[in-house]
Amino acid sequence: MSELTRPWTAARTANAVRNREISAETVASNALEVIKRVNPLVNAFTEVTSERALLEARCVDTALAAGHDLPLAGVPFAVKNLYDVAGQTTLAGSRINRDAPAATADGHLVSKLKASGAILTGCLNMGEYAYDFTGENSHDGTCKNPHDLTRMTGGSSSGSASAAASGMVPVTLGSDTNGSIRVPASFCGLFGLKPTFGRLSRAGTFPFVANLDHLGPLTRSAEDLALVYDVLQGLDPADPWQASRTTQPTLPELPKGPDGLRMAVAGGFFRQMGEPEAFDAVDLVARALGISEEIDIPEAARARAAAYVITTAESSTLLLDKIRSRPQDFDPDTRDRFISGTMVPAVWLQQAHRFRSWFRDMMREIFKSVDILLAPATPFHALKSGTRTMTLNGQEMLARPNIGLFTQPISFIGLPVATVPVWLDGAALPIGVQVIAPAWREDLALRVAHHLQEMGTVQAPVADL
Amino acid sequence: MSELTRPWTAARTANAVRNREISAETVASNALEVIKRVNPLVNAFTEVTSERALLEARCVDTALAAGHDLPLAGVPFAVKNLYDVAGQTTLAGSRINRDAPAATADGHLVSKLKASGAILTGCLNMGEYAYDFTGENSHDGTCKNPHDLTRMTGGSSSGSASAAASGMVPVTLGSDTNGSIRVPASFCGLFGLKPTFGRLSRAGTFPFVANLDHLGPLTRSAEDLALVYDVLQGLDPADPWQASRTTQPTLPELPKGPDGLRMAVAGGFFRQMGEPEAFDAVDLVARALGISEEIDIPEAARARAAAYVITTAESSTLLLDKIRSRPQDFDPDTRDRFISGTMVPAVWLQQAHRFRSWFRDMMREIFKSVDILLAPATPFHALKSGTRTMTLNGQEMLARPNIGLFTQPISFIGLPVATVPVWLDGAALPIGVQVIAPAWREDLALRVAHHLQEMGTVQAPVADL
Repeated sequence: MSELTRPWTAARTANAVRNREISAETVASNALEVIKRVNPLVNAFTEVTSERALLEARCVDTALAAGHDLPLAGVPFAVKNLYDVAGQTTLAGSRINRDAPAATADGHLVSKLKASGAILTGCLNMGEYAYDFTGENSHDGTCKNPHDLTRMTGGSSSGSASAAASGMVPVTLGSDTNGSIRVPASFCGLFGLKPTFGRLSRAGTFPFVANLDHLGPLTRSAEDLALVYDVLQGLDPADPWQASRTTQPTLPELPKGPDGLRMAVAGGFFRQMGEPEAFDAVDLVARALGISEEIDIPEAARARAAAYVITTAESSTLLLDKIRSRPQDFDPDTRDRFISGTMVPAVWLQQAHRFRSWFRDMMREIFKSVDILLAPATPFHALKSGTRTMTLNGQEMLARPNIGLFTQPISFIGLPVATVPVWLDGAALPIGVQVIAPAWREDLALRVAHHLQEMGTVQAPVADL
Repeated sequence: MSELTRPWTAARTANAVRNREISAETVASNALEVIKRVNPLVNAFTEVTSERALLEARCVDTALAAGHDLPLAGVPFAVKNLYDVAGQTTLAGSRINRDAPAATADGHLVSKLKASGAILTGCLNMGEYAYDFTGENSHDGTCKNPHDLTRMTGGSSSGSASAAASGMVPVTLGSDTNGSIRVPASFCGLFGLKPTFGRLSRAGTFPFVANLDHLGPLTRSAEDLALVYDVLQGLDPADPWQASRTTQPTLPELPKGPDGLRMAVAGGFFRQMGEPEAFDAVDLVARALGISEEIDIPEAARARAAAYVITTAESSTLLLDKIRSRPQDFDPDTRDRFISGTMVPAVWLQQAHRFRSWFRDMMREIFKSVDILLAPATPFHALKSGTRTMTLNGQEMLARPNIGLFTQPISFIGLPVATVPVWLDGAALPIGVQVIAPAWREDLALRVAHHLQEMGTVQAPVADL
């Protein structure tokens, strides 16, 4: 029985629970049993909130029986452990935060999912303070890729990807500053949504780089992405960055499906530094969508560099007291990155911010003639865990900072992206393609992702564990 | 004849011209003759726009004859040479900018004064790139204090203060990033207004620190400050910083005159590092206003430090190409400040900005219980030109960076300030007092300044040259 609901998507689960074909309590109890069996294999959860899950599931059943409607009734979910969960300490992947008191309330997005009937099952492993693309964590142990346990999940939303890809829960929440949703979605074969910067409230989460942080869901279907995203939306005065956003522009309605959309492959930088599978996956998706155009994105390499400067300088400022007082308690792989961040000159940081404005305006111009851009999500399939260096186009480089090669220039200016999972013929591992839309047009990216899934071009099967 | 109109204020001049008692052309011609005689003594003008002045004066006379009303009809003015003036290169006190093409249009505030009937007579000396509190400039020569030619004018709006205090023009425009209007107003015995950050458009001026720059007038009466300020006001979409400001709060009307205002002297930091004249001047003004309360401003020293960090890091970023390519062409006194600014860590800059938010919020709380705060404008009378070090409270320190001791913590959070000129009994030199109001309440500061002038507590006589 417990495995019955494991492959169910959020849509299917909510549908069955709302129609009283199965109780939320049974779904929750199933999920907890699957977690009990599968989690020791992948190390995705750092905390399983069993008691809360069962209690809330019973409340959902009661509410449904009383005639209430809940769009995500009974859908199990779990969150990266940088989200506040009442009664749990918000670890953010660190050892140091373990000394902080437990959160007294759920983060804003956790509350939103709860209010829509979804059932929180626990908190998920992540790279320390989100400064990670591998899924390795010296405090909580490496999180494993359910499709190949010797491979990286990608980071920093490692547990979020591993838990969804292994079918422990159909929905997880992650965060993406430079690629931390899109990279693990690519390595673990999931749909991931990094919404427009400022779209979703970040209240009640532990920040990394306030200027670049995005929150978003990972799921096994495009429909689930849209379903969850709809519930998460809305202005929250408690997130000053979000609340200060100007009104989002209203754009003309476009026809359903990809028909009528002007789509292109991102060229230049996005066609260069990668293994064949990265470009094969983009080509496969482009062919399925009938795309022949390629548009060069000027200065994407500089956008990446600027994103790095902002990331390292601003995160090191945020954590300065901790870096000074407890350097020995950092993960060795992130400690040096944070220490070096304290030495970045202010001139670089300001130049990075100025370039960011330029790059954003330039991309706005490009999006006047196109609605969707495709780019690889990662330059390769999931690497073997423990990989320190790699060779790309004959150039040896550090693996850790270069996995987000193709994601950084996009999050840098806050564009919405749906990552879709491609399984190339004969490939044992998935790889993601970024479906990039103009600011505030998540709907376009989601529509294309859904169409690709309907056609069978992309898919996210539960890993066979 | 030419000296007749020299001591006239803007109000008196405009009144006489509007009533056709004297023509704008005569006033302009008088001003140009006074400039010709007096300017060689003080070195305030870097460019006298005689031809333009006479032409525009004739236009004003024509317009008045045609029945138009112009609030500043025939009022001669001049501007710090960081304001764009059509046909002139915008020097910003530098040698390097001399290679730039001439401005093709007047800056926004210059246009506003022109449209109100005021007559531009020229461009004024200033500290290089506004990074100066002395009034010394190695390219254009030292600007001299009209009340004692061996003394500093204060900076960086040195020419603006010298030209107004010597009666060459009744109105000048300056800029104030850390005190560059208030310091020279104090040293030269003028009324100066540093409006709320974001109040006046900065379009068409050469910036120093976008985060901290304010523009404003210097005059010889509080009435003139208000008159000119009224003309300068208004939203300008060409200044993105100003245009992005949220709507200014509407506060309840308060009675005219200082009656009904809750006023106090700023204590703590603002009562410590200075010569007796600084505190005597504040006490004199406080007595005249019947103030007995003193309110401590916590962390003002830290506010000053944070203002320095932002100033040096952001101005050095702005000028980075020039610092790299032409260091030998900088004024030796500012070059090292700009070079050191390129080495400030990004962590400091971000901490300074964070502290700024905290300090602003803290001051908002203080302004819930008070409407006006008094503080010295400078820690002493004008220093002898060439002074490199000074001793304050037994502590030897560099003169140049410490002259703005009392102005920096106020401009740091953009509060409006009217500086009023005090002549202590028997003193040969004036000294300024800052009348500080809550954000967007220039009206309160101006009302108090006017009342003090009406009572004779403060005054700005034309220097005897």
